[in-house]
Amino acid sequence: MTYCVGLLLDVGLVLLSDTRTNAGLDNIATYRKMYTFEEPGERVIAIMTAGSLSVTQTTLSRLQDAIDIPDGPSIMTVDTMLEVAEMVGAMLSDVSGKIAGRMGEQASAARASMILAGQRRGGEPRLFLIYPEGNFIEATSDTPFLQIGEHKYGKPILDRVVTPETTLEDAKKAVLLSMDSTLRSNLSVGMPLDLCVIPSGEQRISERVRIDAEDETFQAMSVAWSNALRRGFQEIEI
Amino acid sequence: MTYCVGLLLDVGLVLLSDTRTNAGLDNIATYRKMYTFEEPGERVIAIMTAGSLSVTQTTLSRLQDAIDIPDGPSIMTVDTMLEVAEMVGAMLSDVSGKIAGRMGEQASAARASMILAGQRRGGEPRLFLIYPEGNFIEATSDTPFLQIGEHKYGKPILDRVVTPETTLEDAKKAVLLSMDSTLRSNLSVGMPLDLCVIPSGEQRISERVRIDAEDETFQAMSVAWSNALRRGFQEIEI
Repeated sequence: MTYCVGLLLDVGLVLLSDTRTNAGLDNIATYRKMYTFEEPGERVIAIMTAGSLSVTQTTLSRLQDAIDIPDGPSIMTVDTMLEVAEMVGAMLSDVSGKIAGRMGEQASAARASMILAGQRRGGEPRLFLIYPEGNFIEATSDTPFLQIGEHKYGKPILDRVVTPETTLEDAKKAVLLSMDSTLRSNLSVGMPLDLCVIPSGEQRISERVRIDAEDETFQAMSVAWSNALRRGFQEIEI
Repeated sequence: MTYCVGLLLDVGLVLLSDTRTNAGLDNIATYRKMYTFEEPGERVIAIMTAGSLSVTQTTLSRLQDAIDIPDGPSIMTVDTMLEVAEMVGAMLSDVSGKIAGRMGEQASAARASMILAGQRRGGEPRLFLIYPEGNFIEATSDTPFLQIGEHKYGKPILDRVVTPETTLEDAKKAVLLSMDSTLRSNLSVGMPLDLCVIPSGEQRISERVRIDAEDETFQAMSVAWSNALRRGFQEIEI
């Protein structure tokens, strides 16, 4: 399983993913689920993945191959973020369809979804959720966050605190607390975490960190949140 | 959809269910999902249901019919709560199987699960989750709560505050806040709510209330919890 969340704010994009993959409960591994592509000042793209690892890795490899071909069309050269979303969706659908075709009754396992975030020079920051079939939806000011994977445990905190006006600091806190709730409730979502911040209008990544299980700041935040919840709980009267 | 939760505490059993049922998103109705059976001082049983309404209503009707037959075996006459669980499980599985047999490809819709709580004189309070096939699991001090239906949104608060030592007042607060998070995130779970409290060793229901959408105490609690979460969020430093 997986949990990835992306926020689309007035001040930029904030993304967080876990790294746990499993083929059955007895085969657990750590794989990066966040991929970034950056030409500072010109274009920045981040992709987070959930679902079949063979599908997502192959899709990302092909997207990278296209970038490596000089003068060819790729997610770093097409005109708009919408075209980037269409290119990623088409590639995901194509890879998934080919693998599914060889899997017979297991075809439904060859599915994956992605969150695509980015900004090109001259455009706005945009955030998409790409479905296994390649179609997609886009975050708006009404719903400024998108999630893939195990999304339910971490949604209540986002519903309550995230708006387009949220600051980058509060946004980082919100996605980390959303992940904290998910980590506590679902063993198939696991540390370390990958966090990425893309400020509006700069077409670059301002912060890209891996947070491991021993990270003292994350641990302290997790404890503080638990304490705040318990204190808030005790203060409520019925 | 549905959300029902039951807590097994040293001081007793606390149960909460919603009342929303739907056959498609455009066909929504209110149905009771909590049924209670009481012979004060001797035996008290509460059953909460999730899944196919035709399966759960027929199962409950048959359990009631058995009670109404003088001197026949029923959930009010068998020796232990374990036997009650076996009787409810067998009835659920039987009704579900018969309906599924007539539904062809739609057979998977004829499924339901239940939470069974109760105490007989001379026994301990017990809490069971009964699966569609009639088998069941039981709450223990390690895991003092059971949920059916849309369980994920409301689990983080239970994980953090519920232990066997929780008081009845705190337990009511915990299940109501757990429901509040679920109501906010899933439209197919809806007011009014049914709350039931069964104190240990008394074999009776001490509190049985319906909480409707206009209930001022519940509304105030919901607002206070939102405020506590936002305040806690603001106080955390990263």
